[in-house]
Amino acid sequence: MLVLGIDPGSLRTGYGLVEGNRDLVRPLQFGTIITSPKDPFPHRLQKIYDGLKGLIDAHHPEWVALESPFIAKNVQSAFKLGQSKGVALLAAVHGGIPIAEYTPTQVKSVVTGYGAAEKRQIQQMVKETLGLSEVPKSPDVADALAIALCHIYSHSSRKRLGLSS
Amino acid sequence: MLVLGIDPGSLRTGYGLVEGNRDLVRPLQFGTIITSPKDPFPHRLQKIYDGLKGLIDAHHPEWVALESPFIAKNVQSAFKLGQSKGVALLAAVHGGIPIAEYTPTQVKSVVTGYGAAEKRQIQQMVKETLGLSEVPKSPDVADALAIALCHIYSHSSRKRLGLSS
Repeated sequence: MLVLGIDPGSLRTGYGLVEGNRDLVRPLQFGTIITSPKDPFPHRLQKIYDGLKGLIDAHHPEWVALESPFIAKNVQSAFKLGQSKGVALLAAVHGGIPIAEYTPTQVKSVVTGYGAAEKRQIQQMVKETLGLSEVPKSPDVADALAIALCHIYSHSSRKRLGLSS
Repeated sequence: MLVLGIDPGSLRTGYGLVEGNRDLVRPLQFGTIITSPKDPFPHRLQKIYDGLKGLIDAHHPEWVALESPFIAKNVQSAFKLGQSKGVALLAAVHGGIPIAEYTPTQVKSVVTGYGAAEKRQIQQMVKETLGLSEVPKSPDVADALAIALCHIYSHSSRKRLGLSS
């Protein structure tokens, strides 16, 4: 199964393409779509959408996975995050890819086995599980990879238990 | 000048196409894109995007006008509104249409001459200015028409004063 994990943000949108199942996972591609605060906001949204839609068209992941709900400091940052997430979801829908959403606690507990894990612990687990030489420099990338891993593990378990996909 | 005013929302997105200049305005088309809370949220975003993109492709407005910043009760409603606004902005960018944004106070003062005007006063002014037989039933439609009117009036003034378009 190929999963595209996305951690959207107006400045930095992390993404991680992970292939595998419960027993074996490997990273296919990961990175960050960076937008400039100097550019008009609508064009930054277009850059996020185009970047993600490009990845979807090139790799045809079976699932897109995101975190939900987001955590935001205040209403204004929630607006910005919401706009970024909106175009990320649209890229998935336009690509015909089903979307899975997990709470931050789900991602933490599935990936590290501990629902209150710290950011650093998740990053370390992502590095080890995927056999990366170092922790991804951008926390958005580590988050996106963690979300993709969370979906692969959850999905494998559901299949094993005979639950719906 | 043809302007598409948009008042995005996850449940109801009001839109209003208004043609004219400072001296003469007429409504071309207005209505609401309604999405069902029973549908998955990403598909609701797609319906908003497709509806707006369809209007843009059919009518080729010269401008898209929206309110900014939005007012939201809390972080969760800001997320929902943000996602709806994100796909609305994307529809404009994908259609190659420039975007103008006005604060709620600007819309009120330009349309009614009074920055602290009440909702009811704006609706009444929209009805009278556009020669509608009645106030639009949906407040989102009245808001979208008010934003379009605001842009037509502001833009005409700027042109008259020799400011940039």
